[in-house]
Amino acid sequence: MQPIAVADAARAAATVVAGATTTAKNAALARMAELLDERRADIVAANAADRAAAEERGIEQNLLDRLSFDSAKIDSRIASLATIAGLPDPVGSALAAWRCANGMDAARIRVPLGVILMVFEARPHVTVNAGAFCLKAGNACILRGGSEARRCNALLGELWAEALAAADLPREAIQVVSGSHAEVGELLQLDSHIDLVIPRGGPGLIKAVAEQSRIPVIKHFNGVCHVYLDSGIDLDRGLDIALDGKCLMPQVCNATESVLVHRDHAPQLARIVAAFRDNGVTVRGCPAVCAAASDAEPASEEDWATEYLNLTVSLRVVDDLDAAAAHINTYGSHHTDSIVTDSESRARRFTQVVDSSVVLTNASTMYCDGASLGMGAEIGISTDRLHARGPMGLADLTTTKYVIRGDHHVMGPARCTGEGT
Amino acid sequence: MQPIAVADAARAAATVVAGATTTAKNAALARMAELLDERRADIVAANAADRAAAEERGIEQNLLDRLSFDSAKIDSRIASLATIAGLPDPVGSALAAWRCANGMDAARIRVPLGVILMVFEARPHVTVNAGAFCLKAGNACILRGGSEARRCNALLGELWAEALAAADLPREAIQVVSGSHAEVGELLQLDSHIDLVIPRGGPGLIKAVAEQSRIPVIKHFNGVCHVYLDSGIDLDRGLDIALDGKCLMPQVCNATESVLVHRDHAPQLARIVAAFRDNGVTVRGCPAVCAAASDAEPASEEDWATEYLNLTVSLRVVDDLDAAAAHINTYGSHHTDSIVTDSESRARRFTQVVDSSVVLTNASTMYCDGASLGMGAEIGISTDRLHARGPMGLADLTTTKYVIRGDHHVMGPARCTGEGT
Repeated sequence: MQPIAVADAARAAATVVAGATTTAKNAALARMAELLDERRADIVAANAADRAAAEERGIEQNLLDRLSFDSAKIDSRIASLATIAGLPDPVGSALAAWRCANGMDAARIRVPLGVILMVFEARPHVTVNAGAFCLKAGNACILRGGSEARRCNALLGELWAEALAAADLPREAIQVVSGSHAEVGELLQLDSHIDLVIPRGGPGLIKAVAEQSRIPVIKHFNGVCHVYLDSGIDLDRGLDIALDGKCLMPQVCNATESVLVHRDHAPQLARIVAAFRDNGVTVRGCPAVCAAASDAEPASEEDWATEYLNLTVSLRVVDDLDAAAAHINTYGSHHTDSIVTDSESRARRFTQVVDSSVVLTNASTMYCDGASLGMGAEIGISTDRLHARGPMGLADLTTTKYVIRGDHHVMGPARCTGEGT
Repeated sequence: MQPIAVADAARAAATVVAGATTTAKNAALARMAELLDERRADIVAANAADRAAAEERGIEQNLLDRLSFDSAKIDSRIASLATIAGLPDPVGSALAAWRCANGMDAARIRVPLGVILMVFEARPHVTVNAGAFCLKAGNACILRGGSEARRCNALLGELWAEALAAADLPREAIQVVSGSHAEVGELLQLDSHIDLVIPRGGPGLIKAVAEQSRIPVIKHFNGVCHVYLDSGIDLDRGLDIALDGKCLMPQVCNATESVLVHRDHAPQLARIVAAFRDNGVTVRGCPAVCAAASDAEPASEEDWATEYLNLTVSLRVVDDLDAAAAHINTYGSHHTDSIVTDSESRARRFTQVVDSSVVLTNASTMYCDGASLGMGAEIGISTDRLHARGPMGLADLTTTKYVIRGDHHVMGPARCTGEGT
């Protein structure tokens, strides 16, 4: 990869796709879906070669899982492309339109961000998903996946180029690259060419990108997510929500890592611990929990801030809602937190006081998810506060433009005399 | 200043002001307005001492102008505080609310950003304006003005503390500091304490802050703004708009720096140059302009990208609207650009093709202004594409939170068995 050549090509393509019709963009997405199906055997073979090479080098099992791009995952991407094609085009839509006091008509219109660089680990499905998202929002993108996935990603890059060409869009609108760390470092300096960087992967990758980049970065760190079981609830229903958040997909960022229990439920602590154990979950508890259940391990101070990403949960008894909220704001990661309560006023207070990107009432933390929230899909979950926070949809890949229509509006006295020489 | 102590205090205050009522925040703004009036003589005296010291050190005249904070400017700040108090509180307002397909109710709610650091040159009025803006949006702020303004700023900081205390809000919600460059450099590393940095001043200051900062920065660079005079228009009315943008406040970022003229107006070039000359403006022109008017100076390639900030304008004849747009996208700064046209379709095309934060039709570039656009006021004009672009109002000092209400929504099969031990 020649970083400056890639960035120049992306900038040129961005100007074209920014003005592309929704029909053309959707045609490219539809053609990509067809190509994934037509070339399924080749994709699976490329992925198998990637996985074999990775296994030979002794890659960790969870990375190997992420690297996998089998026929079922291809079907899921084909479906996702159709979903993204079906989403409303954000480009050109008005966030607001108003008449100014001085009689001018104003509107704030969504326009593409420009060029987006994604840096991610393994995961060929990101190559399909991120490309589709960036294109639909009118952006050009540079996709740099992990070297473990390079055979499969290179093929997906060829398919994107073919899909774009079929829709008369520039092939450079989605560039799949496999540069060295040094070359990625060069890209991260090109703030005149690239408008946004989204790193996806472990904290090490994200920190390295954020520290090197001169370009604005939207980080996707993982989450230390909580469920608080309020007083007065049906404990079984509360536990259903906590168990769902912990057990369904323990490896994802919005999995529940810590459960806080109102002290009114203290007599039920043994039952609570047993419910986790019955679902294969190890409990690390505060002293009250450990006193009530011999199979709970004592939680250290560090546990309260730990993202386990496996079937472990930390469990603490708290005095009341405010203590729960204070715990969450102190030890949590401002990602996704839920209260189970029957009290409308306490639901309201929790929602106001907990400073997280997604705050849920009577729902599992699994619902921090663009598809569940009606965004159709998501490109990720931002853990930043600027520009995008929480699940990122198409609109988060746009910026805005103020469009003002006057009727020969001037402010000052300077005027053309109409005389001249 | 002890950077970490200032940042700790700001973070603690941010938690309180994030939950403050609109009434309390407005009470602090109202008390500040009273204090500006009550302490007018002291403020003017502190500013006079700042200016005397600056003159002794031989400060440039335009910096001396910016440093000035006289009685009229105090009145303007008193009026501005009332305006900001009258604006709707963005905190808690919903950007959108919807029912998800799975029956959950979702909303995206504005919440404060947290802690904002402003680094600016001289200009005591920013100390009032930025403090009021940050507070009204529920944020704590750290205001670090230029050392030239330190006496006046220190007094304004005392008044802010008094105004906040009168409203039972923490005095540390608005901290006016006068740290060294090294101390500011330390603040810029504290990304765990500070959520956003807004530098205001010359390009050198903004670049230095952006390069040092680990915290997201919203830059306010200046503008190379254009007016394009389309074919078929009444030239005098077009010139009124160009002259207004150039002459009213040539030192501001949205002043017109370059005027593009459709070739149909070429026979009128001498008149156009004369109109500028009659208003005291020096013209640097393309060869056609220089051929038509002996008092036009030849423009160099560099002129087309120059922000003069004085009574100089560059003037170029272009073949058509697309050539004008290409010139603007190439040489401009994506800030504020205007077309004067009688054609609805060309107005529409210009608006779509010109990639600027504010695009105007038949209005002076002076109208890139929060007050004119009905935002009530502005904290600045962002030249970035992320988070905020163009005039920044109160809403741009907030982030969002997704609030989701379920009815015991779970996704997976994990359930409490209700048995336990």
